[in-house]
Amino acid sequence: MIGFLGGTGPQGRGLGLRFALAGYSVMLGSRSAERAEAQAAGIKILARGADVRGGANEEVAAESEVCFIALPYEGQRPTLESLTGQLEGKLVVNCVNALALDGGPHLLNVEAGSSAEECRQLLPGARVTAAFHTVSAPKLLDPDSALEGDVPVCGDDPADREAVVRLANVIGGLRGVHAGPLRHSRTLEAMTALIISINTLYRTSAGVRFTGIDGEDNRADGS
Amino acid sequence: MIGFLGGTGPQGRGLGLRFALAGYSVMLGSRSAERAEAQAAGIKILARGADVRGGANEEVAAESEVCFIALPYEGQRPTLESLTGQLEGKLVVNCVNALALDGGPHLLNVEAGSSAEECRQLLPGARVTAAFHTVSAPKLLDPDSALEGDVPVCGDDPADREAVVRLANVIGGLRGVHAGPLRHSRTLEAMTALIISINTLYRTSAGVRFTGIDGEDNRADGS
Repeated sequence: MIGFLGGTGPQGRGLGLRFALAGYSVMLGSRSAERAEAQAAGIKILARGADVRGGANEEVAAESEVCFIALPYEGQRPTLESLTGQLEGKLVVNCVNALALDGGPHLLNVEAGSSAEECRQLLPGARVTAAFHTVSAPKLLDPDSALEGDVPVCGDDPADREAVVRLANVIGGLRGVHAGPLRHSRTLEAMTALIISINTLYRTSAGVRFTGIDGEDNRADGS
Repeated sequence: MIGFLGGTGPQGRGLGLRFALAGYSVMLGSRSAERAEAQAAGIKILARGADVRGGANEEVAAESEVCFIALPYEGQRPTLESLTGQLEGKLVVNCVNALALDGGPHLLNVEAGSSAEECRQLLPGARVTAAFHTVSAPKLLDPDSALEGDVPVCGDDPADREAVVRLANVIGGLRGVHAGPLRHSRTLEAMTALIISINTLYRTSAGVRFTGIDGEDNRADGS
C-alpha cells in the first residue's frame, strides 16, 4: 500500500489518484481521519472504484509500505516527530517544497539544506528519498490530462532510488530519472520555484525533461 | 560583436563557435592576449573562417556589444572589478557556475546568492542576465554534434531577458526560455550540478527541456 501523509492536499490527492489508476492500493492521510475519508471517497470515484482509503496520518504511516510525505513544509516537523516509530525502516518519498510565494516563488532557508534532508533528520530510521516535486498537481488530478515530464529522484541508497524511479515509471507520461544523492534535493525544490516562475510568464503548467538519456545504452546502473 | 570574458575555457570557446557559425562576430578574451588569439584561431577554423578574434579581457569588454562572462567562478571577482567602466550599460550574460566538484558536484556558498548576483554587485552599471549554464561544452565544441535542450534565462529586466532568449534561439537545437528574475539564477547554477550528477549515473551529456511551453498560444509576453 502506498500512503500519503498530508494526502488531502492537491499533490497527495493527485499522486494518489494516478497510483490508484495504475493498480496500487492507496491511502490518503490527514490530521483528521474524517476529512481524509471524505477526500479519499472523491478520489476513489475519479479512480473508477480503485482501492483508495482515507485515515489519520498515524494510521497511514503504520499501514504504508511506501510512504509519501506530501505535507505543507510548515507541517512536516510537527507531523513527522510523532511518526518515527511507524516509519522505521520504510521507504519514504519526500515531495515537500520548502517554498514561499511572497514576492515571487523562492526557497525558504532550511537549516538541514532541504525539506527532504530535514525529513531524513526527523526520521533517522527511514529510507528517505526525494521526488515528484515538479509534477503539476492540477494535471495529476485531471485523469484526462496527459502528463509529460521527468521525475528526478534523489536518494543516498541507489536501490531505494531505483524503487522510486520505478514508481514514477508506472504513471503514464512520467519517467523516473536517477539524479544522485539526497544532497541534490534542494535543487529539485528550487526547480519547483523556477517552474512556478515559468508558469506565470507563459501561462502554462510546465514540467521538466532531461535530454540525452533516452538511449538504451546509457541506462543508469543504479550505482 | 559578442565577447567572451574567460573565452578560452570550453564554455566560452563552445558558445563562441556556435555564435560564429550563426553569423555573429565573436571575440574570445583571456588574461593573455596571445593565448586568446591562439584559441580564437582554432575556433575560426572550426567556424569555417567566420569572424572570430582573440584579445585581452579588457579589450574584449571594451569592444563587446553583448558580453558573456565565462570565467571560472574564482576568477570572476578579480577580473570584473577592473572592468566596470568597459561594461557600463552593456548587456552581460553570466554563465558562471559557482560549483565545487569534490565529494560530488555541489554549489559553493556565495554571499550574493549566485555567481550571477555577485556579477550584478560587481557591475552595478551593466544589464546582467544569467543563462547557458547547463549546455554541454563538449557538444558545443563539436560542430557535428546536434544540440538539444532549453536555455532558461534569468534577468530582472524583461527586455534584456528577451534579448538573451533570442540569442539562445539562434543556436540550432537550443531554445531560450524566460525563467524569471535574476534571483532564480542560483537554481540554474544548481541545475548544472544536478546534470553533472545525472551525466555520471547515465554516462551521457544530459540537457534540460521544459515541457508545456511548446504552443503558440502561451508565449511569454516578456512582462
